[in-house]
Amino acid sequence: MKKINAAIVGASGYTGIELIKILINHPNFNLSYAGTSEGGVKISDLHPSLLHVVDIDVKKSDAREIAKTCELAFLALPHKTAMEFAKELLNLGVKVVDLSADYRLSLENYEKHYGVHLDKEHLKNAVYGLPELNREKIKKASLVANPGCYPTASILAIAPFAPYIKKETPIFIDAKSGVSGRGKKITESEHFVNVNENFLTYNALKHRHEPEIAEILTLHGIANNIHFVPHLLPITRGMLVSAYIQVNTEIDAFKVLTSFYKDEQFVRIRENTVSLKLTAGTNFCDIFAIQKDDIVFVSSSIDNLLRGASAQAVVNANLMFGFEESAGIPKVSYVP
Amino acid sequence: MKKINAAIVGASGYTGIELIKILINHPNFNLSYAGTSEGGVKISDLHPSLLHVVDIDVKKSDAREIAKTCELAFLALPHKTAMEFAKELLNLGVKVVDLSADYRLSLENYEKHYGVHLDKEHLKNAVYGLPELNREKIKKASLVANPGCYPTASILAIAPFAPYIKKETPIFIDAKSGVSGRGKKITESEHFVNVNENFLTYNALKHRHEPEIAEILTLHGIANNIHFVPHLLPITRGMLVSAYIQVNTEIDAFKVLTSFYKDEQFVRIRENTVSLKLTAGTNFCDIFAIQKDDIVFVSSSIDNLLRGASAQAVVNANLMFGFEESAGIPKVSYVP
Amino acid sequence: MKKINAAIVGASGYTGIELIKILINHPNFNLSYAGTSEGGVKISDLHPSLLHVVDIDVKKSDAREIAKTCELAFLALPHKTAMEFAKELLNLGVKVVDLSADYRLSLENYEKHYGVHLDKEHLKNAVYGLPELNREKIKKASLVANPGCYPTASILAIAPFAPYIKKETPIFIDAKSGVSGRGKKITESEHFVNVNENFLTYNALKHRHEPEIAEILTLHGIANNIHFVPHLLPITRGMLVSAYIQVNTEIDAFKVLTSFYKDEQFVRIRENTVSLKLTAGTNFCDIFAIQKDDIVFVSSSIDNLLRGASAQAVVNANLMFGFEESAGIPKVSYVP
Amino acid sequence: MKKINAAIVGASGYTGIELIKILINHPNFNLSYAGTSEGGVKISDLHPSLLHVVDIDVKKSDAREIAKTCELAFLALPHKTAMEFAKELLNLGVKVVDLSADYRLSLENYEKHYGVHLDKEHLKNAVYGLPELNREKIKKASLVANPGCYPTASILAIAPFAPYIKKETPIFIDAKSGVSGRGKKITESEHFVNVNENFLTYNALKHRHEPEIAEILTLHGIANNIHFVPHLLPITRGMLVSAYIQVNTEIDAFKVLTSFYKDEQFVRIRENTVSLKLTAGTNFCDIFAIQKDDIVFVSSSIDNLLRGASAQAVVNANLMFGFEESAGIPKVSYVP
Repeated sequence: MKKINAAIVGASGYTGIELIKILINHPNFNLSYAGTSEGGVKISDLHPSLLHVVDIDVKKSDAREIAKTCELAFLALPHKTAMEFAKELLNLGVKVVDLSADYRLSLENYEKHYGVHLDKEHLKNAVYGLPELNREKIKKASLVANPGCYPTASILAIAPFAPYIKKETPIFIDAKSGVSGRGKKITESEHFVNVNENFLTYNALKHRHEPEIAEILTLHGIANNIHFVPHLLPITRGMLVSAYIQVNTEIDAFKVLTSFYKDEQFVRIRENTVSLKLTAGTNFCDIFAIQKDDIVFVSSSIDNLLRGASAQAVVNANLMFGFEESAGIPKVSYVP
Repeated sequence: MKKINAAIVGASGYTGIELIKILINHPNFNLSYAGTSEGGVKISDLHPSLLHVVDIDVKKSDAREIAKTCELAFLALPHKTAMEFAKELLNLGVKVVDLSADYRLSLENYEKHYGVHLDKEHLKNAVYGLPELNREKIKKASLVANPGCYPTASILAIAPFAPYIKKETPIFIDAKSGVSGRGKKITESEHFVNVNENFLTYNALKHRHEPEIAEILTLHGIANNIHFVPHLLPITRGMLVSAYIQVNTEIDAFKVLTSFYKDEQFVRIRENTVSLKLTAGTNFCDIFAIQKDDIVFVSSSIDNLLRGASAQAVVNANLMFGFEESAGIPKVSYVP
Repeated sequence: MKKINAAIVGASGYTGIELIKILINHPNFNLSYAGTSEGGVKISDLHPSLLHVVDIDVKKSDAREIAKTCELAFLALPHKTAMEFAKELLNLGVKVVDLSADYRLSLENYEKHYGVHLDKEHLKNAVYGLPELNREKIKKASLVANPGCYPTASILAIAPFAPYIKKETPIFIDAKSGVSGRGKKITESEHFVNVNENFLTYNALKHRHEPEIAEILTLHGIANNIHFVPHLLPITRGMLVSAYIQVNTEIDAFKVLTSFYKDEQFVRIRENTVSLKLTAGTNFCDIFAIQKDDIVFVSSSIDNLLRGASAQAVVNANLMFGFEESAGIPKVSYVP
Repeated sequence: MKKINAAIVGASGYTGIELIKILINHPNFNLSYAGTSEGGVKISDLHPSLLHVVDIDVKKSDAREIAKTCELAFLALPHKTAMEFAKELLNLGVKVVDLSADYRLSLENYEKHYGVHLDKEHLKNAVYGLPELNREKIKKASLVANPGCYPTASILAIAPFAPYIKKETPIFIDAKSGVSGRGKKITESEHFVNVNENFLTYNALKHRHEPEIAEILTLHGIANNIHFVPHLLPITRGMLVSAYIQVNTEIDAFKVLTSFYKDEQFVRIRENTVSLKLTAGTNFCDIFAIQKDDIVFVSSSIDNLLRGASAQAVVNANLMFGFEESAGIPKVSYVP
């Protein structure tokens, strides 16, 4: 079968390299274009770990060049920049999986939290790319908004409890992420000495993933107030979300989860606990829940760069092009 | 001024070495006895970092020997073992600071969570050693039950909000501790490879510190349901507690905290966030809070071995013997 | 093409899981047997990260059972135990890649460092499985002794300099390994608190990999005295070897390396330095060298569990069965 | 006894905060001046861990202001900047301990490696502040050049073997340092993601501490060629040096060390190995050595910020002012 040519726009960052790593071993996509804002280097100059592994040229990103050879583009760009490329690529007939926040929210919500939207046209038809909730829509989409990492882990953990959740009680999400979630930027906050042997909260009750979680959960029947606090873990990759919800009735939390996800190959329900090591390197979302009285504690673990970004993006692309959902998607964790 | 002779029973563990480190530089206490279940070695055999620093003999722990020379004993022992020593020492006239759980709870609560209590007599008069809440009682006590690490951080964070807390809403405590909190025991769970680059929950909604927190908060006017989930951080020392509470009224969370702790020298209210590095190595409890609508997020950071165990124990001893509260207590963190 | 059935004996350890991870995605081998000393579980019971990934039964290891269906067995066992299995399997016609030390050394050297050898018969024909040095012999071998991790990194770094080395000057090898190199055993030395934020030497000048390095280097023309000191790094996986040699002549160390390894796909010569991150997760050995006067400093980096054990073992198997050398072998590192 | 007023010039960096931490608890020095290039803040603004611990103002560094009240200044500045302050302070009668490289080397050596020297006058009388080798000179000095971290650990390890070292054989020093040794600057090399779970060499055979080690060892009778390679450890603080030397004769390395350092309170000879944890937080240099044939492997461990910088600086100041050498100097490590 002929492979589909795919482009990565924004190949230098962490989600960029993860996309590269997946696409070079993908049975149906062919990585034929890698772009950055500068261009003019080899992939192994950007990512020395890929020396003697992949050696295509990195170009200065150009939508028209992409459209000449590619049917699909992954945008691993900051928000705002992403929508400029998306708009042009879509108009040129290229399907897009956008890893930024630009197409995840309703217009109203977007402009409240991120500022003016420059591509209202395509925003209308963008599909939120959480396959477990939106699979059929994704299959037909030209533009998929790949979910944020915190929203992916949070929504997958909480959504199954929709029928049981007490509507008046707020939902509290205490989330923890490794440092790769902050990207490659270098400020005091990413200095090894400041992160190592440390742990802290940031953007408590103010993080922009909170409205994303709330909006998507509302669409799936959970309109409770959501209170979200992220923390920074002294590790490179991995994300664990701990959520606290109140329910109306006695339930068997484990059964609720296994039943909800019984046909899903990238969600695993754990009987004891979840831990980051078991998902690092994979597209799995592991979930554990326990109930005491009317309180359910539910915890999910993902690899923030894979299930929280690049691997989920390729799952979405697989669906958009009618390939097997798991084609090329990593399932084997980095353990030990 | 003549120093008071003090004993450490259980000198080999992490809280044992922290007690040693504080007492050898204490202006008012003299470490005159260090005991373990075996004895027969030097302190620097147990703790090679103390070679050429302190070199007293470690004895096989014996209450009667202790009573001959010491007016005070710190018990750094497992629960159950602790109360056997405490009972005998108290009967011999030695004051006791017990770092185990044996005297922290009401009899009923204790026996529900830990089994039969063997020293009901002294349990009645034991004082819960959280200086900010019980200072005057501690001063008069012969037996102080040193609080658990999670309860210390949790109670100090939540107690100031007692007047404002909405009584019907449960309080959620999402807590994270470094590995030293598990002590020196060696199981799969403490193997470097299993902890490093990992993060996980354990004993979710079932940890024995939950009833301790609930009992003490109830005594201070907060009878809400408490739901507690601890997590294991891939670091050696440090503990961060994130608590979620609902309040009845608009408050200025920062002012509530600064006002409540205005005379306290070992509590610092932070304007932005708390982080473990700033308290590691000290007896400080740093607290940060922020409100959104009727939700207050409050977060506290302590050194689990110091404020969560040994340094707080020495503060209690300072109070019991009429010394300055801060005598010999570490205030300078390990930063960077 | 029909796949070759392969067995893993010793499936529970770190090298066991790495073999599993490679074989389940291998185009030419079929993992048809996984054994441990106990058996009676599923692979995902031993390795929870493999839940929903692979789910074959784990048997109590039995050579005759293996011989019924498998043409190849990997032995991921302690030395001594390994040769018992190897002997029986070879006699039953099964080819063997042994990851232990049992067939790496000459009889004399083995018995000096490890004790009595119980399979002198097969020892004679065992081939030391370092493909870059012994490729043709490996292709014809029935029994391959997979090199130790330190020897792999050390020999690959030093061997290219054979023509230039000053014979009288000792060679110093200062090596550093992550904790996974110690296996799953749990002693004080693997306790997180003792490893984290720490670094130390062990077995200085006494490690059993020293004679292995010396014996193999001698076979390749470097009979100098070898002095070897390993250190324990506070990381999970990765090994870096720093070697100091004196040469007879002005050389261009970079060219010596690139020329020696010009046809090798699993050795990369780095122009600046090597670092563990770039090889973790792969079978690559990265090498860097620099000369000052008559001193050459050469440094190599490998993944101790992959190039230092399981991935190299599968490369050897590929060669033994006439498959492409890189079939199924990981080249994409865990970066970031 | 009246305390001596001391100044810290360069109070914002890692060595700055370590000086502050020592001086605020020092029995004989009074921290009366803290300066940075900007000034205008409180110490707890620079170092939030010191909130409620010390709260003096930080000034824009000014030598004349310092000279008005201080008899001593510590310079925690980059080289070049340091000598400008030193020159002026010395001319104003203030004694100086300089933590930079500016006064450590002979003029010739300095200008070869660091460029033009701007204070040749005082360079002549500067004393190299390694107390174990230069104690008597330090006592009489007005200007002490505090040794580099690598030179401190290397020289203390190697110097005792001076009488036995084979003169023709080069000495190889394989050194490893935690990230705090790089200071607070933020480049890609200090990004958490690049350091964590990584390990690498840098400046192999080219580091500027190599000539410092060579020059000082030569003064103490060891004129061998020195080859020095530093590595970056994924930890915050700690430095381990592994040195390889050839000797002329059978010696008992342990006895050589214990005899050489028999009167020293800040050097500990270890019987098994050294490890970073045992010295972190202290001024100790721990040393271990083992001999095989005519090769001696000697390994030393220090806290790079304390024995390798600030604590050693205060020891030097103690000597310069006739105080007890150990006054205010930390001996209790951060263990566990």
